[in-house]
Amino acid sequence: MFCNLRRAPRSFIKVLEVSHRTIMTTELQTKFDKIFGRIDALKPVFIERLGQAIEIPAVSGDETMRPHVVKKAHFLVEQLAKIGFSDIQLKHLGVQPPPVQNPDLQLPPVVLSRFGNDPAKKTVLVYGHYDVQPAALEDGWSSEPFKMVVDEKQQLMRGRGTTDDTGPLTGWLNIVQAHKEAGIELPVNLITCFEGMEESGSLGLDGLIAREAQGYFKGVDAVCISDNYWLGTKKPVLTYGLRGVNYYETTIEGPAADLHSGIFGGVVAEPLVDLVQVLSSLVDSKGKILIDGVNEMVAPVTDKERKLYENIDFSLDDLNASTGSKTALYEKKEDILMHRWRYPSLSIHGLEGAFSSAGAKTVIPAKVHGKFSIRTVPDMDSAKLTKLVKEHCDRVFAKLSSPNTCSTELVHDGDYWISDPHNASFTAAAKATKVVYGVEPDFTREGGSIPITLTFQDELKCNVLLLPMGRGDDGAHSINEKLDISNFIGGMKVMSAYLHYYAESAEN
Amino acid sequence: MFCNLRRAPRSFIKVLEVSHRTIMTTELQTKFDKIFGRIDALKPVFIERLGQAIEIPAVSGDETMRPHVVKKAHFLVEQLAKIGFSDIQLKHLGVQPPPVQNPDLQLPPVVLSRFGNDPAKKTVLVYGHYDVQPAALEDGWSSEPFKMVVDEKQQLMRGRGTTDDTGPLTGWLNIVQAHKEAGIELPVNLITCFEGMEESGSLGLDGLIAREAQGYFKGVDAVCISDNYWLGTKKPVLTYGLRGVNYYETTIEGPAADLHSGIFGGVVAEPLVDLVQVLSSLVDSKGKILIDGVNEMVAPVTDKERKLYENIDFSLDDLNASTGSKTALYEKKEDILMHRWRYPSLSIHGLEGAFSSAGAKTVIPAKVHGKFSIRTVPDMDSAKLTKLVKEHCDRVFAKLSSPNTCSTELVHDGDYWISDPHNASFTAAAKATKVVYGVEPDFTREGGSIPITLTFQDELKCNVLLLPMGRGDDGAHSINEKLDISNFIGGMKVMSAYLHYYAESAEN
Repeated sequence: MFCNLRRAPRSFIKVLEVSHRTIMTTELQTKFDKIFGRIDALKPVFIERLGQAIEIPAVSGDETMRPHVVKKAHFLVEQLAKIGFSDIQLKHLGVQPPPVQNPDLQLPPVVLSRFGNDPAKKTVLVYGHYDVQPAALEDGWSSEPFKMVVDEKQQLMRGRGTTDDTGPLTGWLNIVQAHKEAGIELPVNLITCFEGMEESGSLGLDGLIAREAQGYFKGVDAVCISDNYWLGTKKPVLTYGLRGVNYYETTIEGPAADLHSGIFGGVVAEPLVDLVQVLSSLVDSKGKILIDGVNEMVAPVTDKERKLYENIDFSLDDLNASTGSKTALYEKKEDILMHRWRYPSLSIHGLEGAFSSAGAKTVIPAKVHGKFSIRTVPDMDSAKLTKLVKEHCDRVFAKLSSPNTCSTELVHDGDYWISDPHNASFTAAAKATKVVYGVEPDFTREGGSIPITLTFQDELKCNVLLLPMGRGDDGAHSINEKLDISNFIGGMKVMSAYLHYYAESAEN
Repeated sequence: MFCNLRRAPRSFIKVLEVSHRTIMTTELQTKFDKIFGRIDALKPVFIERLGQAIEIPAVSGDETMRPHVVKKAHFLVEQLAKIGFSDIQLKHLGVQPPPVQNPDLQLPPVVLSRFGNDPAKKTVLVYGHYDVQPAALEDGWSSEPFKMVVDEKQQLMRGRGTTDDTGPLTGWLNIVQAHKEAGIELPVNLITCFEGMEESGSLGLDGLIAREAQGYFKGVDAVCISDNYWLGTKKPVLTYGLRGVNYYETTIEGPAADLHSGIFGGVVAEPLVDLVQVLSSLVDSKGKILIDGVNEMVAPVTDKERKLYENIDFSLDDLNASTGSKTALYEKKEDILMHRWRYPSLSIHGLEGAFSSAGAKTVIPAKVHGKFSIRTVPDMDSAKLTKLVKEHCDRVFAKLSSPNTCSTELVHDGDYWISDPHNASFTAAAKATKVVYGVEPDFTREGGSIPITLTFQDELKCNVLLLPMGRGDDGAHSINEKLDISNFIGGMKVMSAYLHYYAESAEN
């Protein structure tokens, strides 16, 4: 039942209203009471399990830490076995491709396992990652990042990985344990896919997903990824879209080597002078992309889509708080969110080849690379965008009549992703959220990319749901990363209820 | 007889024609025959001395090499004493100011000495530097940079410091030895001022010159600096002007920290987007400075000045050869040289705070500094220029209506220098050149700066002459630095003849 929703008609995006009347049967209510009760009762066990996992500093970006990453995979295997998962496999992905210090460095394994294998049930694949970002007390943490601290006063758990992504990942183990202890049968077959390289580009995972599509992952009906966050701190969200990104490099070169500006300033055409002209032509200070044809590729906002934004819990103050400044380009909530989620943006990131240190150096750089990227949205076509970008840069450069040479290349692209927020998986998750938190979730998109989302959708030909557990202020990738205990417990209840509602859904 | 020639009327710049008839008296001819003969005869001794000096890797920019720099100072002391210089002093300049690895690091000493102290004679101070740029065989040298090689076939000496500046520096020692051995009295009192930090900003030298103006340097009539090069490879030059340089940094800041372009691209005003707008407004690709009022400060070219350029041995091919490219903004010799020497130029050097490595990083830099500098010429005023630059940047930024903040600061300035190429010192040097090389020298300026030139002029209140020894292709600061033996020998003869002509001159 795969359909490529990136190309889906916009009518898919409807105003969502989870009908409260249809959420709960008595039978389900009884099950939920038992499961939720067990989750509450097991809280100390779950916190203990998370604490043990956090103690393993599984930093994938630091080659010297690789043994810890592998150790964490083995810790998960042990926990999965203890809870009763079966067919547990460590999938090895071979050596890490360059650039690496150690050419024999092995990628950390992907942990596959399943709970249940009943052909009469739907099968849900849950993805998480057990690797983490680097962290050190000296960075400004208020406690050791790899020693989880439970702050009883603030009711949160602090440590690297609590929210990104070890907390949500262990959530899937925990809910199976809760089901077992509550004597409730898991309503779906569950498959885990836990990787150890997400913070370092998910190296090797695309290939594994492709290889296992008709193997370990055969028969998967839906994929659920719990690796993002609520938009703010109060209202739960479900995420149905991600922007893509096309990264470009414009290179201008002239002299054979860097020159001294005393001797050559004023007599040669300086590549960096040309480059700032090209870069200044791409986007204006109001964020408007100035490349002909780009804005025309963007799908227009429909009234129905606009309504999706009305109830979302977000404000200019939230944006200002997150940037620590008053540098917003828009004041209205809808404008801010639409420009984050559903309009393209062009950012200039920097220069390679020019002087970049503190102090003063009187160099004329001979060859400079300008780096910029465009966040892409429906209905932008990557190849067409690249053509427009190249033509634009070439045209601007040609007007300079410079004797230097200019070329613009696509460094990498990752497509945007958008799902139908009305499909069975989202509907089930929305009901689950309402049951647990008592509110309709906000339906959000994200400005950034999670490329593996698209890989799962395309390779397994099924819907993907982004079901966040933590809050927008959790500090993933930052110091004092935390997960509120209420989000941990609430998140596991939502995961549980989601599986039950999805199992009941008519759609496959 | 000091007059600040930077503010001198432009009529000082006259077409120079050294009258051949008046160059040589019979008495002088006899002296020159003897001195030049001795210089030729002592060639092996002079090459040996230079070779010994080159073997000491006196790299001032590398703290770990500081003992070698000091060792080279002591080597010079020994040589000066052997030749008969008196009052030899090592002037210590104290600890090197930050940034340094070792806070106790002592600056290398300045070597002062004198030869002759006859009140009836004029006194000439000769400046040189004994420190050198870094060099390593691995950089691509065809022989060990600190082991001087005499290439008999090409008749040149290769090694770090041969042309910059150990060769010219030892020239002054050598000509005193040649005079002594030839039995010819030195026609002036000679004072040496040899520093060991020129390649690292001449740290401490300004202060020493100021302190010794009425001390060791009291009574100096003229300063001669032999630390630049012929314009090309064939024709000797005398240098009467240097451009100044004002270095600026424009800082634009907004968000409190770097942001992720996925999450914030399109919703915040990006400081780097604003900065490329400001930088693109400074200068066009044809080298034209776009800041209001700057070009209006430049002294107009007079017909007489224009004539100075007519005979200069230079062409577009020379420029293309030196840049290894065809990136020249002008085709005509006069245009190229005027834009190098007597017009201002604006170069953009780079960015601090932005992404600057290879690869792709999707950062929105929170605070970026754009670095650019303006080479200054008569009659530009540094303070007025800075005012115009700041006003321009502020005006351009204001038009962007950006919520970010922008400020432009002067990082450092060094004034331009221009001398009267008709004064006694230049006239003597022109005669000396004609006697040795048989041609009138080209009167050149330099696009770059030698800030110490202005310090000598201002503190000692006397004329400064730039008298180059080496050629434009010597590779100072580059690999395979060399000094042609003919330039070494010819240069010493010019130095000798210069002292005699200057001693004879009516002007003081």
